[in-house]
Amino acid sequence: MIEQLRRTVCDLHAELVRNNLVAWTAGNVSGRLPGGDLFVIKPSGVSYDDLTPESMVVCDLDGKPVEEGLAPSSDTAAHAYVYRHMPEVNGVVHTHSTYASAWAARGEAIPCVLTAMADEFGGEIPVGPFALIGGDDIGRGVVETLAGHRSPAVLMRNHGVFSIGASPKAAVKAAVMCEDVARTVHVARQLGEPVPIAQADVDSLYDRYQNVYGQRSSR
Amino acid sequence: MIEQLRRTVCDLHAELVRNNLVAWTAGNVSGRLPGGDLFVIKPSGVSYDDLTPESMVVCDLDGKPVEEGLAPSSDTAAHAYVYRHMPEVNGVVHTHSTYASAWAARGEAIPCVLTAMADEFGGEIPVGPFALIGGDDIGRGVVETLAGHRSPAVLMRNHGVFSIGASPKAAVKAAVMCEDVARTVHVARQLGEPVPIAQADVDSLYDRYQNVYGQRSSR
Amino acid sequence: MIEQLRRTVCDLHAELVRNNLVAWTAGNVSGRLPGGDLFVIKPSGVSYDDLTPESMVVCDLDGKPVEEGLAPSSDTAAHAYVYRHMPEVNGVVHTHSTYASAWAARGEAIPCVLTAMADEFGGEIPVGPFALIGGDDIGRGVVETLAGHRSPAVLMRNHGVFSIGASPKAAVKAAVMCEDVARTVHVARQLGEPVPIAQADVDSLYDRYQNVYGQRSSR
Amino acid sequence: MIEQLRRTVCDLHAELVRNNLVAWTAGNVSGRLPGGDLFVIKPSGVSYDDLTPESMVVCDLDGKPVEEGLAPSSDTAAHAYVYRHMPEVNGVVHTHSTYASAWAARGEAIPCVLTAMADEFGGEIPVGPFALIGGDDIGRGVVETLAGHRSPAVLMRNHGVFSIGASPKAAVKAAVMCEDVARTVHVARQLGEPVPIAQADVDSLYDRYQNVYGQRSSR
Repeated sequence: MIEQLRRTVCDLHAELVRNNLVAWTAGNVSGRLPGGDLFVIKPSGVSYDDLTPESMVVCDLDGKPVEEGLAPSSDTAAHAYVYRHMPEVNGVVHTHSTYASAWAARGEAIPCVLTAMADEFGGEIPVGPFALIGGDDIGRGVVETLAGHRSPAVLMRNHGVFSIGASPKAAVKAAVMCEDVARTVHVARQLGEPVPIAQADVDSLYDRYQNVYGQRSSR
Repeated sequence: MIEQLRRTVCDLHAELVRNNLVAWTAGNVSGRLPGGDLFVIKPSGVSYDDLTPESMVVCDLDGKPVEEGLAPSSDTAAHAYVYRHMPEVNGVVHTHSTYASAWAARGEAIPCVLTAMADEFGGEIPVGPFALIGGDDIGRGVVETLAGHRSPAVLMRNHGVFSIGASPKAAVKAAVMCEDVARTVHVARQLGEPVPIAQADVDSLYDRYQNVYGQRSSR
Repeated sequence: MIEQLRRTVCDLHAELVRNNLVAWTAGNVSGRLPGGDLFVIKPSGVSYDDLTPESMVVCDLDGKPVEEGLAPSSDTAAHAYVYRHMPEVNGVVHTHSTYASAWAARGEAIPCVLTAMADEFGGEIPVGPFALIGGDDIGRGVVETLAGHRSPAVLMRNHGVFSIGASPKAAVKAAVMCEDVARTVHVARQLGEPVPIAQADVDSLYDRYQNVYGQRSSR
Repeated sequence: MIEQLRRTVCDLHAELVRNNLVAWTAGNVSGRLPGGDLFVIKPSGVSYDDLTPESMVVCDLDGKPVEEGLAPSSDTAAHAYVYRHMPEVNGVVHTHSTYASAWAARGEAIPCVLTAMADEFGGEIPVGPFALIGGDDIGRGVVETLAGHRSPAVLMRNHGVFSIGASPKAAVKAAVMCEDVARTVHVARQLGEPVPIAQADVDSLYDRYQNVYGQRSSR
């Protein structure tokens, strides 16, 4: 099981590259086995081209590696904090994707003015606090912000995006969609104000997407 | 014949990816056999990499699958509505491409200030109404908006683009060109006002392009 | 000789794609043999993926194909006009590349505020007149505008770019660099005014680049 | 040793292409052996696709090739000046990457409003003087500007970026990250003012990143 998770987490990093969410080594994916007390995360500072399932780092829920090997991502403490406090979450992604990070640099939530955003995020994408790396501050900021929102993504101020999901793939999807809507709403706002979507319509779209979209067996 | 159409529709999804019109699984192509009462469309929520001719879903003109198998795109009802009401249309494409969707978020038509736009769209690219997914509202919005225009593409408000064509490939071409001109006119407007093109010149360009461009046999 | 030119012109279209200068089939390259009275150009409406040396169309200097086969690009008359009136030119490229076409839509020349622009263009990139396709108007606009400039590229109003060179490759280079500087100057202008470069410095850079850069044998 | 450096420098040019930092042949990487008096640099005007380890040019610290062969990059004098005056530097990269060059065209430093920027650059990315190619002016401008900054990258006014590192790979990383933050801060500024990061936080982030990030052995 953990071997399969190593491969899944390794392979999902290619989606970060393919969707232009990362520069150099600045972005990472982690996953845990549902209900488990271990998670798998990218090693620190290793190029995406050089990642292999074996190089992934297995950590306990305090973010400590459970084996000798490469050092885990410098963002590991934040991932661990999320897993400790959000039992339904089994995937976490962190990126500095351009448009989402630009909203984060201004400390501005992305307003829900696209049906695709209502579908995936159920409303605005919120802003979390400024927090320094190296302790629980980033993880706490992620958890406290997402606790009050439907959104599976949070813009950490002056920093970047954290996204969560019931699986690592779902968290990657949220990261991809976050950048996509961050860019589209940015572009819309450059030449005027987008038309708001009524809250009842946002609610209706979110409800339908969460319950009807996709193949029933693969959700 | 339907097998060839499955392959054509499947392969055209790669053009959506190659032209950067889609993120994750958010875009779809359909096609029907000229004069027929069946159309072929993308399955819902399946990655573009995983599409095969066999996974395409064959539907009747009410948007109901005619075989056991994968569920069709959640946009199937809109495609079906278009086919029922526009007999000359044999291809429909839906995307959330960035620049076109940004115009759609503001509810603003794209003005015809490029000769390439006069060629392909014959004037502005119009805006259709806001409509919720799940019934005939989106399809009706597409058909009613395009009925009064030369344009094979419509910007559905707060949503994205629907494009049509005499073939699935023609509809994909309209989707590609729509995003291309949406981006160029956006960029032009960022630093000032584009120069208008006289209506007589738009008419002349449109007429010529529709009747002279390309290889006669392949049009 | 003409067979080698067919291959060269065919292959250079891949550079248009690789450098993101074209959408769908909207861009073309031509080349003539130095001192000759024939030129080779893209067939009309054919996808870049489907181009072969054999599918290139050989035309005389009136733009008439000299053999049975595919119809030449709808821009052939403009290429032919350039060859007839600029004997030193052996390569012509036409694109609707995004940023250059955006300047063209506003009818605004690109100011020379980058050393790379001074190197390649020797000053601003000028704007040519609005002209309808189908006669000599576009070609005449290109020739008359470039006659008074160092620039090997011209922004045709509301249309796109024509670039010229002593070889087809040089014309493609000019098209690539035109879009590159059009984008950089656009981005610079979005947040303020670029610093001007003194004319004497522009002259010095242009002179040096035209005479010193590159491998002597390959210029 | 020098053969391995030829290969390293050759291969790193592919990173410039992959990260969209260069158009046509306009960008170059050099490297020297630590403590040595030779460096390896791109040949002038050669396409990135055609580069081979053998085609790289070995120069002395005055920028003169030490063997017969291709002419070195027209920016060689600037690289050589940096190596002569910064003994700790063993890699230099020069590009005209779009967003960084846009800040350079306005002569405006990039403010440090992203944690990733505090990590890598330790503060703003500074602007160096306008300088003509062909002598020591560019190199001197690079060295004098970087002398007073933590930043491994400098925006040369109206020109582009020079970045430095303890190895060629580190200099390429700085070039990639410079464009990445140049773009993100540009996008942030388009719709308002980014929130500043307190100087103490910038200092803390810079210190941690320089000393903790990555695999200890591979830094």
